[in-house]
Amino acid sequence: MCRFVIYKGTEPVQLSHLLTRPCHSIINQSFDSRLRLDHRRPINGDGFGVGWYDPVYDEELGSQPCIFTSVTPAWNNVNLLRLAEKTKSPLVFAHVRATTAGTLSLDNCHPWSFGKLMFMHNGGIAEFHRIKRKLQNSLSDELFNMVTGNTDSQWSFALLLSKLPDPNAKGFTPSILQRAMLETIAHINALLEEANITEPSLMNFCVTDGETVVATRYISSRTDEAASLWFSSGSTFSEYAEGGHYKMSKTDKRENIILIASEPLTFEKADWMEIRTNHMVVITPKMNLLQIPIIDKFYTPPSDPKSPTRDSEFAATKGFLIPRRESHPRSPASSLQNGSH
Amino acid sequence: MCRFVIYKGTEPVQLSHLLTRPCHSIINQSFDSRLRLDHRRPINGDGFGVGWYDPVYDEELGSQPCIFTSVTPAWNNVNLLRLAEKTKSPLVFAHVRATTAGTLSLDNCHPWSFGKLMFMHNGGIAEFHRIKRKLQNSLSDELFNMVTGNTDSQWSFALLLSKLPDPNAKGFTPSILQRAMLETIAHINALLEEANITEPSLMNFCVTDGETVVATRYISSRTDEAASLWFSSGSTFSEYAEGGHYKMSKTDKRENIILIASEPLTFEKADWMEIRTNHMVVITPKMNLLQIPIIDKFYTPPSDPKSPTRDSEFAATKGFLIPRRESHPRSPASSLQNGSH
Amino acid sequence: MCRFVIYKGTEPVQLSHLLTRPCHSIINQSFDSRLRLDHRRPINGDGFGVGWYDPVYDEELGSQPCIFTSVTPAWNNVNLLRLAEKTKSPLVFAHVRATTAGTLSLDNCHPWSFGKLMFMHNGGIAEFHRIKRKLQNSLSDELFNMVTGNTDSQWSFALLLSKLPDPNAKGFTPSILQRAMLETIAHINALLEEANITEPSLMNFCVTDGETVVATRYISSRTDEAASLWFSSGSTFSEYAEGGHYKMSKTDKRENIILIASEPLTFEKADWMEIRTNHMVVITPKMNLLQIPIIDKFYTPPSDPKSPTRDSEFAATKGFLIPRRESHPRSPASSLQNGSH
Amino acid sequence: MCRFVIYKGTEPVQLSHLLTRPCHSIINQSFDSRLRLDHRRPINGDGFGVGWYDPVYDEELGSQPCIFTSVTPAWNNVNLLRLAEKTKSPLVFAHVRATTAGTLSLDNCHPWSFGKLMFMHNGGIAEFHRIKRKLQNSLSDELFNMVTGNTDSQWSFALLLSKLPDPNAKGFTPSILQRAMLETIAHINALLEEANITEPSLMNFCVTDGETVVATRYISSRTDEAASLWFSSGSTFSEYAEGGHYKMSKTDKRENIILIASEPLTFEKADWMEIRTNHMVVITPKMNLLQIPIIDKFYTPPSDPKSPTRDSEFAATKGFLIPRRESHPRSPASSLQNGSH
Repeated sequence: MCRFVIYKGTEPVQLSHLLTRPCHSIINQSFDSRLRLDHRRPINGDGFGVGWYDPVYDEELGSQPCIFTSVTPAWNNVNLLRLAEKTKSPLVFAHVRATTAGTLSLDNCHPWSFGKLMFMHNGGIAEFHRIKRKLQNSLSDELFNMVTGNTDSQWSFALLLSKLPDPNAKGFTPSILQRAMLETIAHINALLEEANITEPSLMNFCVTDGETVVATRYISSRTDEAASLWFSSGSTFSEYAEGGHYKMSKTDKRENIILIASEPLTFEKADWMEIRTNHMVVITPKMNLLQIPIIDKFYTPPSDPKSPTRDSEFAATKGFLIPRRESHPRSPASSLQNGSH
Repeated sequence: MCRFVIYKGTEPVQLSHLLTRPCHSIINQSFDSRLRLDHRRPINGDGFGVGWYDPVYDEELGSQPCIFTSVTPAWNNVNLLRLAEKTKSPLVFAHVRATTAGTLSLDNCHPWSFGKLMFMHNGGIAEFHRIKRKLQNSLSDELFNMVTGNTDSQWSFALLLSKLPDPNAKGFTPSILQRAMLETIAHINALLEEANITEPSLMNFCVTDGETVVATRYISSRTDEAASLWFSSGSTFSEYAEGGHYKMSKTDKRENIILIASEPLTFEKADWMEIRTNHMVVITPKMNLLQIPIIDKFYTPPSDPKSPTRDSEFAATKGFLIPRRESHPRSPASSLQNGSH
Repeated sequence: MCRFVIYKGTEPVQLSHLLTRPCHSIINQSFDSRLRLDHRRPINGDGFGVGWYDPVYDEELGSQPCIFTSVTPAWNNVNLLRLAEKTKSPLVFAHVRATTAGTLSLDNCHPWSFGKLMFMHNGGIAEFHRIKRKLQNSLSDELFNMVTGNTDSQWSFALLLSKLPDPNAKGFTPSILQRAMLETIAHINALLEEANITEPSLMNFCVTDGETVVATRYISSRTDEAASLWFSSGSTFSEYAEGGHYKMSKTDKRENIILIASEPLTFEKADWMEIRTNHMVVITPKMNLLQIPIIDKFYTPPSDPKSPTRDSEFAATKGFLIPRRESHPRSPASSLQNGSH
Repeated sequence: MCRFVIYKGTEPVQLSHLLTRPCHSIINQSFDSRLRLDHRRPINGDGFGVGWYDPVYDEELGSQPCIFTSVTPAWNNVNLLRLAEKTKSPLVFAHVRATTAGTLSLDNCHPWSFGKLMFMHNGGIAEFHRIKRKLQNSLSDELFNMVTGNTDSQWSFALLLSKLPDPNAKGFTPSILQRAMLETIAHINALLEEANITEPSLMNFCVTDGETVVATRYISSRTDEAASLWFSSGSTFSEYAEGGHYKMSKTDKRENIILIASEPLTFEKADWMEIRTNHMVVITPKMNLLQIPIIDKFYTPPSDPKSPTRDSEFAATKGFLIPRRESHPRSPASSLQNGSH
């Protein structure tokens, strides 16, 4: 059971507003018993990572992100607390991790970077050890040797890099990143099928080059729901009441902030819209948010009455989804898909 | 919110049976949402320690306990997992800790030792910073400089050592340890009173010299319940069903094992008896278990109809007690107090 | 045996140029056998810390420094390597530590901060445990409780704060910081004398408020040399040859950079001048460097022919000084003392 | 530059006598500047591990070794200091590591175990990343997935396991272990040759099943010396002078203790004999020590006048050998080779 959050804003955010101060930040979510459904290993105390890009480009510092990772619990890491108070960034990935796969090691902490690219994953690839070697054998030496850890997630990142025309390129268009993401998922699906692995794999992947963000909510199943994924957008994300109570507000028509998170970061449910299962969301450099279906054999058109209702039990059992008890507002996805949002 | 457990047996126990394998061990209790009531900091992921004595005395190895501590979560500590599988001991203290006081540091992990003595604490001394200097000033230089951390607990241990005729003595009688414990509590109470601190202090202290164990369930209040404390005794403590389901059984009349714990370690409620608030329990070298009232101004005789019913809310709010919802079997304390148990 | 370095520049420096890239940075000095003279514990692998101020004031981020500390060796800390590549600052304190006093714990890693003030120490106070309580008892509750570790260094910082008119003030003049520093040393000397401690204490202290830097090279002895302290100034500090070979150069008349370090950071000896024993150096907000004698009973005027020649053996034995074998250029101190530098 | 030591004795040794107390133990060797020849990364502060077998077989505890590893420097690890004082074992592997390959992670710390087998390595396989995939592809799924780290050493252990008739067997004869070791080296050599890697590889490997020990001093070169390897045997290994000065003494005819180490652990040079380059040493369950040549294309008969004199520069540059300045006594190898020792 991992959790992640993505922040992209026209203005940089102080990391503490995202990570340490909100009472429902991904770090503090670990404390909220309502979320603790993975009884195998219910606490995200096994590793933490945050990566961020500079607010202003500095030639000496370069365009790669800075990454801070930790194997001690995030809520008690004095270095994280101090850095979060003193750092601002317009684009942040943060991830808390339970060791569903891989040992407790900095090498296994998300996010990872390669040049200016950064990647993280929430979910798990079923019986990954059975496809690991085939996946590895498809990589170039450079990408094979880049992987220092032993998780399905980091190998998926290496695979994604292999799908780029040039992983060392100076820049990437949104469409190049989208295509690499789709090919990564397709490649993993092919390996799983070849190995006759039928248990669904949860592939909520996120990648960014510092300008575009591509994230997926995906499961290799026609009948199960993917791990949860939400977004919220507005003009300011701030504390409205003492004790870390944050909300997103829309003080003007412009949308300056987009948050994508495995769970809503605030208790204002109306502010959060669910991303649809087996869809990809793209935040463009100009802050448009697109939601695009991932159409393959696991896709079920939401509007088609013949589509099966996806069951949330699988993802819930794995700890990646909270069964819906209250009625959440549905995402007005149509307005998203045409990119007008 | 901390948790601890004490094991004393006529036969050594493999530490894994106490720490890592039972699904309701103190390490795994961190996962059980029913116990997570301290919303300020509900997870015991902030430090861990276990101390144990050798099964057989070896002159070269000496009579002091061995202590292993960790600031990474216990459930994911490979060294702990390996040691627990390969170590047996007839007398074990184990403690998981949340940083209610003191920073995250090995120096602040319980238990601590001094010569052959070992000590741990579950609870907290109210506004300790206001009495810390006075407490320190009452210590000898040796004991003042022994303290490497910054917790109320470790300073309480130093104070307890100062109450012994000779903390470096080769052995201690049960009555010497009991008296030192009572004087420690009385001294802390005096300091609190002098500083006009009225919030209750939770003083579940445990000390052992490797033969006798003295533990307290104590609160400096006439109207509140102390942090919870339970015991169980029997002839074998073993797994009766796969998945870490342990129970205490009594295969013969002899009682070879006594467990004292902040929470029952098994789901067999009948096996666990609650130690009364403001009582001290003593396990003698010969495995007798005595329960002795701590009679001071905070004592309320349980049999006296004029005694107020203690309120569990204070300890519960602090995370040291689970409000009783189901009816637990009450401890047959009378048989304990006369030491016949 | 610790090492430290201070950087103050009119332009911010990328931390990697100070910490990780130079082959003779304080981190890499640990590898250079010529410096390894403390045979008791010769490697600075026991803790590391770096603190820095923002290049540009940001109201949200405030004026306090950011501090990163580590108990794993600095040369292998991926977080430090990544942060050093992505951070620039005009005022940096960095410190590597061997546990000559205090246990291995983040609480014991230099530098420490309090509001906008930052402090570090190279040296050791003789028999500190014998004066610790008296020192503590002279502090206010706020300062007494601020100390989380157990080193002579952190307690010295608390003492220095107690010498300020208001440690929480928004700003400090150079003269206020200088006076607090002198009073701190005088107070420690008084405590040492009262306790009849005759072994010299090494008090190379550094404090800054983000604008002024005050550093001392001081020993409580008339006949021994203090721990070494050097400075270098120039207009650029950069790599002149591959492999981390750095030098200070003076491309124009202005001096934009001042480095103060326990050992020269480059092999260009002519670039480094020794700060005199029992002197205080001050870097003013406008980048003037003053060298001021600390005149007390341990002071020996360097120009006075009756002054004893100080012996470097004591500091060398403790690992804080490298006995002079080659002739170093002497510091042209006269020009410094009048502040014209 | 790593260091290791093997202890095998008829009596168990207190680990502190091997690890923490001797002033020239592998942990303290890190401090001795004479050994610091690897200027790329000269300090063994990057990881530590010790593995040991129980003195007496206990059915519940099993026959696998217990392993303690650490990524903080061994000399400052309180858990190691405490365990070493309280643990005795008749067969110990200990290893200090510099990250010549692999990141700083517990997964990468030697020794590793598999069932009752334990393995460690001193040296490095040249351009390992170029043969890593081929090596991996020769393994069974069980062994492929056993590897949690990313070092040449751990993959070599997996390869060695693959050479055993059954790596999960209850016991192994000396000849089975010897053959697996030889096949491992031959397999690695074949992979290196296939990839046209000509730089020599340093393969000082050690494996044990708790009864037999097989260690190699090997380099894939006809003209270079292998990483250093020494042994010493006697009846007691004890401190003869305060300050951690240990020596091996022979109080009777029996040899109860055999030490194998990358560097002599004492300053008594006469007590240490060098193991010959490209030889394998075997300690049998009955404490016989055999030295057997590894005859392949890199073997040069020491007695053959046509054999080239091996050059120590390669291993020295890598930090695995100290160039001989003083004349060490040569090993009387003839008596060893026939196993009469």
